[in-house]
Amino acid sequence: MVESRHTGSAVVIDASGRVVRSWGDIDAPGFAPSAIKPLQALPLVETGAAERFGLGDTEIALACASHRGEPIHVETVKRWLARADLGPQDLECGAHAPGNAAAAEALIRACETPSPAHNNCSGKHSGFLTTARHLGEATRGYIAPEHPVQRRVRRVLEEMSGLDLSRAPGGTDGCGIPVIGISLRGMARAMARLADTKGLSPDRAAAAKRILDAMAAAPQMVSGTGTFNTVVMTVAGATVRLKTGAEGVYCAVLPGLGYGVALKIDDGASRAAEVAVAAILDGLGAFTAAQRETLAPQVRPIVKNVAGRDVGEIRPAKALTAEAR
Amino acid sequence: MVESRHTGSAVVIDASGRVVRSWGDIDAPGFAPSAIKPLQALPLVETGAAERFGLGDTEIALACASHRGEPIHVETVKRWLARADLGPQDLECGAHAPGNAAAAEALIRACETPSPAHNNCSGKHSGFLTTARHLGEATRGYIAPEHPVQRRVRRVLEEMSGLDLSRAPGGTDGCGIPVIGISLRGMARAMARLADTKGLSPDRAAAAKRILDAMAAAPQMVSGTGTFNTVVMTVAGATVRLKTGAEGVYCAVLPGLGYGVALKIDDGASRAAEVAVAAILDGLGAFTAAQRETLAPQVRPIVKNVAGRDVGEIRPAKALTAEAR
Repeated sequence: MVESRHTGSAVVIDASGRVVRSWGDIDAPGFAPSAIKPLQALPLVETGAAERFGLGDTEIALACASHRGEPIHVETVKRWLARADLGPQDLECGAHAPGNAAAAEALIRACETPSPAHNNCSGKHSGFLTTARHLGEATRGYIAPEHPVQRRVRRVLEEMSGLDLSRAPGGTDGCGIPVIGISLRGMARAMARLADTKGLSPDRAAAAKRILDAMAAAPQMVSGTGTFNTVVMTVAGATVRLKTGAEGVYCAVLPGLGYGVALKIDDGASRAAEVAVAAILDGLGAFTAAQRETLAPQVRPIVKNVAGRDVGEIRPAKALTAEAR
Repeated sequence: MVESRHTGSAVVIDASGRVVRSWGDIDAPGFAPSAIKPLQALPLVETGAAERFGLGDTEIALACASHRGEPIHVETVKRWLARADLGPQDLECGAHAPGNAAAAEALIRACETPSPAHNNCSGKHSGFLTTARHLGEATRGYIAPEHPVQRRVRRVLEEMSGLDLSRAPGGTDGCGIPVIGISLRGMARAMARLADTKGLSPDRAAAAKRILDAMAAAPQMVSGTGTFNTVVMTVAGATVRLKTGAEGVYCAVLPGLGYGVALKIDDGASRAAEVAVAAILDGLGAFTAAQRETLAPQVRPIVKNVAGRDVGEIRPAKALTAEAR
């Protein structure tokens, strides 16, 4: 018996805008949350801010992250900010407990409260702050829609998606920055152009490559220990870049094929987004047989009950598992 | 812009089986998880087990609970089990961290691991154990489908729902007991018959009244501090009994009207189940104007981001908010 069902939309597209596969409505605007962080990181690299402050793969991957607040994430943010003469107190993302259970417990045991550096978006925000610092802009108020940092991100999104976003619906993201309504088609195309950089300026093209390379080199920084995002990127190696977002949004890049993928689960459930994006990637031949076997717990997760007994599974709809045409 | 959408089915029915209102498919079998705990508690009372071991409102409400593992829940379970010469080690529900954040933190600070008494189902399991003890049945293995405790629960469900469940699909619940596939119509009718006991045996009728009275007297025991379930029952007083379940199932009883309510969100989201059940109850006139105002955070919750800013709301579909016909 099927206990619960999720529905959604998704698209696989190339940099030219050719739709490779699609499911559901790919042109309705939806909020583009954390799933597009690799795009939001472009200014950090292409303005020269990353180079000036000596940021490596670890920091650039973290700028694209929804991390789990593990010590490696938090310490990296602190060291990074210090290089630009900034600190966690400059982050305007707010504080929440680490997503990683062990990290959250360690904080409680130490009688410490979470700082903004623990916020899963602290790497993205560090990127914003560093870019503002580099360009001599105010670091305070960098989350406001009219701040140059956010206007730049909006312009990058327009250029990469090929969409006019001047009338796009807007909202406020979980971490306080503006969030823009954009179609799955636009999101996926922007992701594809990170891999296939034809038509981009040399600086933008170099920044896109730098970001994809950093995500491949430091998948642990993009999410964290044991998460779907990090496990799939670690197992699949350089074949796939993945980025989860709030409310069931997922983005992926397949650099070898030059494809971008964007997906939204209607009800916002990440358990469905993960299984669906894995099925789509698998259908595109992203995994070898051995990788598919290693990724079985991600591709078709077993549901265990409290006593540890297998009581069900989460499986993708047939429409997703069919081979790519 | 609507960011995410949930769909589902629901029914309001009376004890005779007359459908008052319905939405979607109310006859498809679905698993009946914790939302039917008040029905699963009937044997505890009607066999005389509750009386023999001196159980009061606190314990009987806890037998109907998905509690949050707060000290009051855990201590009550321990004292209760001790009266029947049993202990947490006899609970076969497995252990998980308390749902209440403060309780979970306190456990971590004390360097203690959660016990089966912290399991949100430990009250229901204590009821099972106590009934087995009272009737001289084995207390070990009481979660197995063939154990008299579970056969009795199945029979009660059949009798109360008026359905033949001999061919109903089965599964294993989060806490290890058998879970039975039953329609929303059947679940809701069984809940209605807790309130309108015409046609039930005197013992069953008395047990149903005892259980509804206990839930009204001790709403804190049915769920916990600040939860939708406990807050709505506390504010609405004796007008409403509510019980949440896994995967977006919700049940309610309106004793004054003799109505039972059952609801399932297709994708399993509790945020949707809560807002939907509140809208249905409100449409049935369950809340006074003052109560509706107090319950605004439950009926139409504001979504806040990490920084504490209002960034959205969860609202019921129009079809749910229309007045009852």
